[in-house]
Amino acid sequence: MPFLPVDEQLEVIRRGTVEIVPEEELVEKLEKSKKNNQPLKIKLGCDPTRPDLHLGHSVILRKLRQFQDLGHEAILIIGDFTAMIGDPTGQNETRPALSEVEIKENAETYLEQATQILDEDKTTIVYNSDWLGTMHFQDVIKLASKLTVARMIERDDFSRRFEANEPISLHEFLYPLAQGQDSVHLRSDVELGGTDQKFNLLVGRELQKDDGQEPQICLMMPLLVGTDGTKKMSKSYDNYIGITEEANDMYGKVLSIPDDLIYPWFELITDIPVDDLPKYKKKAEEDPRNAKHDLAFTLTAMYHGGSAAKEARNYFEQTVINKEISDEAPTYEYEAGSEVRLLDIIADTGFTESNGQTKRLIKQGGVSIDDEKITDKGYRVSFEENTELVLKVGKRNFCYLKSK
Amino acid sequence: MPFLPVDEQLEVIRRGTVEIVPEEELVEKLEKSKKNNQPLKIKLGCDPTRPDLHLGHSVILRKLRQFQDLGHEAILIIGDFTAMIGDPTGQNETRPALSEVEIKENAETYLEQATQILDEDKTTIVYNSDWLGTMHFQDVIKLASKLTVARMIERDDFSRRFEANEPISLHEFLYPLAQGQDSVHLRSDVELGGTDQKFNLLVGRELQKDDGQEPQICLMMPLLVGTDGTKKMSKSYDNYIGITEEANDMYGKVLSIPDDLIYPWFELITDIPVDDLPKYKKKAEEDPRNAKHDLAFTLTAMYHGGSAAKEARNYFEQTVINKEISDEAPTYEYEAGSEVRLLDIIADTGFTESNGQTKRLIKQGGVSIDDEKITDKGYRVSFEENTELVLKVGKRNFCYLKSK
Repeated sequence: MPFLPVDEQLEVIRRGTVEIVPEEELVEKLEKSKKNNQPLKIKLGCDPTRPDLHLGHSVILRKLRQFQDLGHEAILIIGDFTAMIGDPTGQNETRPALSEVEIKENAETYLEQATQILDEDKTTIVYNSDWLGTMHFQDVIKLASKLTVARMIERDDFSRRFEANEPISLHEFLYPLAQGQDSVHLRSDVELGGTDQKFNLLVGRELQKDDGQEPQICLMMPLLVGTDGTKKMSKSYDNYIGITEEANDMYGKVLSIPDDLIYPWFELITDIPVDDLPKYKKKAEEDPRNAKHDLAFTLTAMYHGGSAAKEARNYFEQTVINKEISDEAPTYEYEAGSEVRLLDIIADTGFTESNGQTKRLIKQGGVSIDDEKITDKGYRVSFEENTELVLKVGKRNFCYLKSK
Repeated sequence: MPFLPVDEQLEVIRRGTVEIVPEEELVEKLEKSKKNNQPLKIKLGCDPTRPDLHLGHSVILRKLRQFQDLGHEAILIIGDFTAMIGDPTGQNETRPALSEVEIKENAETYLEQATQILDEDKTTIVYNSDWLGTMHFQDVIKLASKLTVARMIERDDFSRRFEANEPISLHEFLYPLAQGQDSVHLRSDVELGGTDQKFNLLVGRELQKDDGQEPQICLMMPLLVGTDGTKKMSKSYDNYIGITEEANDMYGKVLSIPDDLIYPWFELITDIPVDDLPKYKKKAEEDPRNAKHDLAFTLTAMYHGGSAAKEARNYFEQTVINKEISDEAPTYEYEAGSEVRLLDIIADTGFTESNGQTKRLIKQGGVSIDDEKITDKGYRVSFEENTELVLKVGKRNFCYLKSK
């Protein structure tokens, strides 16, 4: 398959990106790749200490998938090297040292989930202990000599901690070097990462230059805002949606997000074609309620298939209905012992403009009492002591009918 | 041989030291050592990229020798590990990467010179590549995790450079860790170093603690001030005296030092017993000229033996004489063609208080003309055209005699 024109590739690549450093070099690489019919090597590192993926992780995996769909080579690095070390200071309990077996298990879990997003057959999987684990002290000294302390402290989180006199363990300076060495070893053309990874990606670029290689492009994706609408999606903030969550849970959680997340989520974590995105942007602004259902449907279909998504939608429409009935529906009361024509009741509610419209609705199956469709235009409702019914007229009109 | 009482050992150990950290732990170690009849391990690292030793280096080597003489074990580490790396940034031309052969040659040169000071039979020599060279990246990360960046930047030279925005290569942070790891590996009891090494010695102490060992004592010696009397002795300042320099050169350079260095040099780089030092301190204050000759003699004898030292002294007494004649001696002129009694000439110079004294001096051989002793009290000096003679009266009085 020949590569798409560079402009078209760029349109896909730019989707949702925060920054491409430097973009002009990416253009050159894409041109050369197309000319030589040679795919680019796209690098993504993953942390096998946290094998459970959520939609936040999918941002970057989808970007990798887009590169695959454009014909480029995806290289997924299992960062088992540092995982085996864990946190040597013992202060970070969330970063325990993992055994080789645990890492292998975690990596399998990770890959099982990641391949729901990636094209498995076109993904190269490597373990960075293969090359980092063989480096000796003298190699580390040489590697470390490529960067200055000041440059390292420039990194956002380091400078913040340094200024706040919070301790930075010396070994933390070695991790970016290890990550950069991965790029040198793999000769990657592009490395993907969140915006919080910018520094580390740039280190890879510098080390490649130092090694005489054409340096990689650093492509930064935004951190997905979680369901709470404020913080980045993370297990620790409990504002996440796992990619293996049940269809209904996934659908429901998506419905819970604030309206201003609808479009960013479409852009960042769905497979809606780039050409269709403007349409969804408009809908998110003008009809957020239904746009959110579309988003929930799309995401659930991506991870659970179309029929599971349909079921989830039905379930939630019902849930929402029940919620709206209880929260918002008005109540109409009639004498206990009386029988009242349904046509008259609907006239009382004002849900229709005429008896003629009411009759058409009944004929079309648009009227129900307690979830049972009423098809008889002459139907009468009997009010006993303590009668309480839910009347639905059309798609969105509800009320309670009670005896008094 | 039983160990000396701890107090007596301390007196020797404290000689010339700037700081012992912490001294109370040293006392404990010495007490335990004496009780168990177990020598302490005294560590000294040396840099095989600079094999030519000067008296500045001898300060620390003499301290190690003193420990040997007290019955303790001297461990000399050849720092071949970092020497093989050199300066990986390539900016420091004085620190080229050395081959294994060069390092071996340099180490031999170093040891040949160092054993003029140390007791060769009682010196354990080790190469730190033996243990540092086998460390992997993951070991370095664990090692680095023991220290914080802030702690590292505290080091005098780092903080100065950091504040001045001068680049510090990241690998420079790894060298103190390597040196500290030497202490962990050797389980040293005491490490010796110059005051500029304090930080590095303390790192060893911390790493040993972290390893569950009894931490080493850090003993800092001053940096020897060079012959110029201002800067530390160093080849690059050309204010040094090599320990292999010819006897005359060594003697002469010592004579050139400012008076205020005489006593520190006695204390730091001679083997004058500690009990005799006060005597030399007094002499340095009251009679610096001769104290300096004593110092020159002592040092020359240490490195070249007593007879070479004597020859050097004779040579320099003569040199000094000639120098003083030319610089300071007054001139007395007499008519060309005249003959003048030596007694009258000496009376003219005022070098003696009476003719009686002059006659006694002549009798004792204390008067000479052009280096020839005059023994005849009635001697007359003949002045021709252009006569020019040097008259010496007693040990220190000179003048020129000229015709006019």
